[in-house]
Amino acid sequence: MENKLMLMIPGPTPVPEQVLLAMAKHPIGHRSGDFSKIMAEVTDGLKWLHQTQNDVLSLTVSGTGAVEAAIINFLSPGDRVLVGSNGKFGERWVEVAQAYGLAVEPITAEWGQPLDPETFRETLEADTEKTIKAVIITHSETSTGVLNDLETINRHVKAHGEALIIVDTVTSLGSYNLPIDALGLDVVASGSQKGYMVPPGLGFVAVNARAWEAYKTAKLPRFYLDLGKYRKDAAKNTTPFTPPVNMFFGLQVALRMMQAEGLENIFARHQRLTSATRAAVKAMGLPLFAPDHAASPAITSVIPDRVDAEQIRAVMKKRYDIVLAGGQDHLKGKIFRIGHLGFVSDRDILTAIGALEATLQELGYESFTPGAGVAAAAKVFATS
Amino acid sequence: MENKLMLMIPGPTPVPEQVLLAMAKHPIGHRSGDFSKIMAEVTDGLKWLHQTQNDVLSLTVSGTGAVEAAIINFLSPGDRVLVGSNGKFGERWVEVAQAYGLAVEPITAEWGQPLDPETFRETLEADTEKTIKAVIITHSETSTGVLNDLETINRHVKAHGEALIIVDTVTSLGSYNLPIDALGLDVVASGSQKGYMVPPGLGFVAVNARAWEAYKTAKLPRFYLDLGKYRKDAAKNTTPFTPPVNMFFGLQVALRMMQAEGLENIFARHQRLTSATRAAVKAMGLPLFAPDHAASPAITSVIPDRVDAEQIRAVMKKRYDIVLAGGQDHLKGKIFRIGHLGFVSDRDILTAIGALEATLQELGYESFTPGAGVAAAAKVFATS
Repeated sequence: MENKLMLMIPGPTPVPEQVLLAMAKHPIGHRSGDFSKIMAEVTDGLKWLHQTQNDVLSLTVSGTGAVEAAIINFLSPGDRVLVGSNGKFGERWVEVAQAYGLAVEPITAEWGQPLDPETFRETLEADTEKTIKAVIITHSETSTGVLNDLETINRHVKAHGEALIIVDTVTSLGSYNLPIDALGLDVVASGSQKGYMVPPGLGFVAVNARAWEAYKTAKLPRFYLDLGKYRKDAAKNTTPFTPPVNMFFGLQVALRMMQAEGLENIFARHQRLTSATRAAVKAMGLPLFAPDHAASPAITSVIPDRVDAEQIRAVMKKRYDIVLAGGQDHLKGKIFRIGHLGFVSDRDILTAIGALEATLQELGYESFTPGAGVAAAAKVFATS
Repeated sequence: MENKLMLMIPGPTPVPEQVLLAMAKHPIGHRSGDFSKIMAEVTDGLKWLHQTQNDVLSLTVSGTGAVEAAIINFLSPGDRVLVGSNGKFGERWVEVAQAYGLAVEPITAEWGQPLDPETFRETLEADTEKTIKAVIITHSETSTGVLNDLETINRHVKAHGEALIIVDTVTSLGSYNLPIDALGLDVVASGSQKGYMVPPGLGFVAVNARAWEAYKTAKLPRFYLDLGKYRKDAAKNTTPFTPPVNMFFGLQVALRMMQAEGLENIFARHQRLTSATRAAVKAMGLPLFAPDHAASPAITSVIPDRVDAEQIRAVMKKRYDIVLAGGQDHLKGKIFRIGHLGFVSDRDILTAIGALEATLQELGYESFTPGAGVAAAAKVFATS
């Protein structure tokens, strides 16, 4: 049905009406006092969301640009870095590090499995010369729906004492409790079209004092992505380059909504959505791609064995106007991914699971009791 | 008066209502057929606007990001480049080239004066070893309102035969006739919040075959700004990184409006707005900062000698809700700049000039006949 689309992908995520309407306001001058006021409020909101007292900088980039900035501002050519790689995004950060001439050591796991923190521990402990300059981790691996054990890996990095920890939180920030200062995460990057409930077009990088210390001697070339420029101007509530003014209008509204909901409620909601989705998928007899102990709070991946993943996506789209994500690279056609990140309610999960049940019936899939999926999700909601 | 703001700055420029409303639509998935259709139409529109058959790539960046991409994709460390520098943006491209370790030779002129094409000719002719790899030119220098003589400089670059010409057209594209293919401009960068009539958040880079040939051996590091990735995906009407979907909704509408108006009419309108503004400023006895023969079609800078520039801006804002731009760097407080770029009509110029007259009267400036400014602008409109 025309204009009835429901996005259940890991980004762009659903955007509240009041955010969209704020974005439709006429732009104002970005060098005006009015814009500085908005930027001041937004920056405060971002710090609240990041649970940090340190800098959170806003760049006109997509998530990849934010993560690239998080890497290249703190390192020099030839620096040794460990990069966790167990999905498309982990692989991408390996490529970024290689493109800039870093000495990259990927630490891999199968797509669909979490990184093994022990490998990080062993490699970091063996580095008695302290040659490892940074450990780069994708927290929620969007391509597989795996949540890596950032807390444990971070403890090993802290034990090493020298290496920075640089984290891609693109699909975990705003869905998972990530107290950045308490954990001592050095650099944390994310993007607007995810937990922020805003369309794509803004990236964010949180930077602590240890990372700024490394910045002083870091020699990788940069200008547009030079975070020092953003920091200097952010202190005056302005930006070094023209910001996407209308995106800021939307972000201001979205952050107010998040603050009204409260961090604990936001994290609990995402946990509930994840549990309900996973319970429903299991009740329908469909195999989950990521194990329960490493389930992303943002994306649930399903690897159906007795029904075609792309057929499911096609019927969900055509009959029910629900967009699910497919697999990427070698997972194309093999998995589908349900996004439940940002402006998503319990009702949306019941809707998506109901439509998924109807789709399975239409496709002649008989390995489940019709109604079992919705019942399982409802049970989670009734008890949490 | 609340919500009565009128932007007469060089960006963000005024945005048509239908563009704003298009941006308020709910985002769609950027990997969908629906988005590919939009991207195909937008890319065709961009090629039309650039008067090129070659690639025009869209990046989630501000104008600086687009120009940086235009530079770093085609050069290697140590490459010799000439950079025209006669304002804040020319200086910025010198800094970008330095940040990436290029051998930069700035060719300067006073702020407010155009670059001398003869200096380029001499330097290029003296380079018999063909060591100059690129000439980087800001076409319309936003900080001063000077239009550099790109056509003549380009002829000298073509006579050299080896150097690429890389052009910042951030405030000239869509306001001045720039037939990119006919001129053989190799790389041309611009940004959405200017002639495009769209808020900030998208940058554009046009690249011809000669530049792609240079790309093959260019060694400056890049990933997010790697134009080869954008080119590869643009061929499939998609993007390597999540695009700002809502900005594309707006750009689609804006390009349709521009196509309905027609290129010749758009350029003639900007010429008319420029002539009317300059005639009015002269009639008010205020000195123009850029000479007539090098007047930007997007921005008119005024350097008042018997009245304070910042006071003019303050009254224009407070009494008449018209935002003018101030001077940058050493011109701060000395000049003010009237933007007449993008969605600006003859009526807007009469409005701005009328308000400027009223402001001058309020400030006790007596070196003009009240009404002379509007009369001079009206005369231009009556005869063109």
